[in-house]
Amino acid sequence: VPIPRLLPPALAALLGSGCFAAAQAQAIDATNGKPRTMGEILEASAPSDWRALDPDHTLYMDLAAGRVVIELAPRFAPAHVANIRTLAREGYWDGLTIYRSQDNFVVQFGDAEEDPDARSPLGSALQKLPVEFTTSASELPFTRLPDIDGWAPQVGFSDGFPASRDPETAQAWLAHCYGTLGAGRGLDADSSNGTELYVVIGQSPRQLDRNITTVGRVVKGIELLSTLPRGGGPLGFYEDPAQRTAIEAIRLASTVPPAEREDLEVLRTDTPLFAELVESRRNRRDDWYLRPAGHIDLCNVPQPVRERPEVTE
Amino acid sequence: VPIPRLLPPALAALLGSGCFAAAQAQAIDATNGKPRTMGEILEASAPSDWRALDPDHTLYMDLAAGRVVIELAPRFAPAHVANIRTLAREGYWDGLTIYRSQDNFVVQFGDAEEDPDARSPLGSALQKLPVEFTTSASELPFTRLPDIDGWAPQVGFSDGFPASRDPETAQAWLAHCYGTLGAGRGLDADSSNGTELYVVIGQSPRQLDRNITTVGRVVKGIELLSTLPRGGGPLGFYEDPAQRTAIEAIRLASTVPPAEREDLEVLRTDTPLFAELVESRRNRRDDWYLRPAGHIDLCNVPQPVRERPEVTE
Repeated sequence: VPIPRLLPPALAALLGSGCFAAAQAQAIDATNGKPRTMGEILEASAPSDWRALDPDHTLYMDLAAGRVVIELAPRFAPAHVANIRTLAREGYWDGLTIYRSQDNFVVQFGDAEEDPDARSPLGSALQKLPVEFTTSASELPFTRLPDIDGWAPQVGFSDGFPASRDPETAQAWLAHCYGTLGAGRGLDADSSNGTELYVVIGQSPRQLDRNITTVGRVVKGIELLSTLPRGGGPLGFYEDPAQRTAIEAIRLASTVPPAEREDLEVLRTDTPLFAELVESRRNRRDDWYLRPAGHIDLCNVPQPVRERPEVTE
Repeated sequence: VPIPRLLPPALAALLGSGCFAAAQAQAIDATNGKPRTMGEILEASAPSDWRALDPDHTLYMDLAAGRVVIELAPRFAPAHVANIRTLAREGYWDGLTIYRSQDNFVVQFGDAEEDPDARSPLGSALQKLPVEFTTSASELPFTRLPDIDGWAPQVGFSDGFPASRDPETAQAWLAHCYGTLGAGRGLDADSSNGTELYVVIGQSPRQLDRNITTVGRVVKGIELLSTLPRGGGPLGFYEDPAQRTAIEAIRLASTVPPAEREDLEVLRTDTPLFAELVESRRNRRDDWYLRPAGHIDLCNVPQPVRERPEVTE
């Protein structure tokens, strides 16, 4: 865990609460009976507290500005994820664009062409997919948060994804948090096929939960999306095609030569260490905080990511 | 209310939920007993549903890219707001910079100089101010939302500001939502004087509530802040001073020649129309939504802003 330089009080003004918290963890103090801070917890983590991303379910979106790394959620949307993997393998998005950026909401990418006859060919991917707004919760791992939530009966993490669950219907679904990836659709529930994807870049739009199929989350590089100029048209679409951002390629990590892959690990969400980390954010004990909140929202829980550490003897 | 062009389903993918919703309201349908959508509600609003910004409590932050309009909250932080008005009147920020941009958290601006002897002079502004984390709720207008909230006993709107209230302590405070403006501080509770200000540009960091003095909110132009390149240093500080964004000037609107002022109105939050608008977002009835959420979070409530309409006979 990198330790930031200490900033003088005038500039230290605010302590970190970023999504990619590992890089922003605070300085480590000697513990003396106090609950550990997030920085201390990450520093004390064991290799088994982390998991590598599965290259068969990881996408690299390469832009001129850099790479966005996306983790797909096959347990939540198997048909969509399978189609997206096919699309990526066949280079569907290469040369297409990010054509929408709506402030405090989403960026969206895919084929901006509206004429059905002029759209990019789907190759072996399917045009029609089943609706996958929710999935059966019965065999899904779920680390529940005790915190109340207005949008769902239960919230927590499943395989590292922020998720919700309803014991009455025995269904679960991904929550729309910062960085969540979804499959855009039209008015018909089953009109998404995974070609038009969006990423949340603002306040969690949880009203979308169970109204659209969510397929993954950004684990690295979201700032390349969140800082894109906003589109001037309705809903943040760019009015001039020249304003769109070119996608050099979206590839499945497993099809990328190993030397060009990212070697990332994400913090597991089903461990005692993760529970301690959530508590350290629910009740901040950093010196700066005078009043711990006693609560945390699902979408405020940090999801640390790191480069896989080199093994040293 | 501008009506967006209709987008074909492939691109219409997602309906708007932006902070500055007036510009993104959906197309108006004839009502036939259905609850009205936000677009219809705004279209039907009366002049008395809106209020003009008070030029004595409005800041214009002029950047090369455009203007950010900020509404100050004197009822919540009278001493800080008075100091900020003095600083603006005397041109404190003119030529200073935005020196921090942390993804999914805040941008921060003021004097990046860390050497106390080299910092910009405060002029007639005060160096020390009282802590104003909360204020007495007893005479504060408060339109309460019925929705549950994990961070505070009660949430709602006060003079257009998203706020929280605790009946036990009879205190109220501004909530850290997207666009909230706060006064950065160091480790000491009373170390803010209003020169170093931050704006929330990500998931609402409500853990900051009651830990820092909040002084206002951005009502227009936040995209000029939210799209700034993120700082590469710890906590999003720019490592190279050349990466900072210059502030041309921050002025109190009342000191700006009338011809150069913004003529903005914000939707009042203490009206039946506003209550109907919140309900239209709590339970979306737009054709696109299949499952109304039955809930809305304080920080998901849109806060419409418009140019004052010209009076026509």
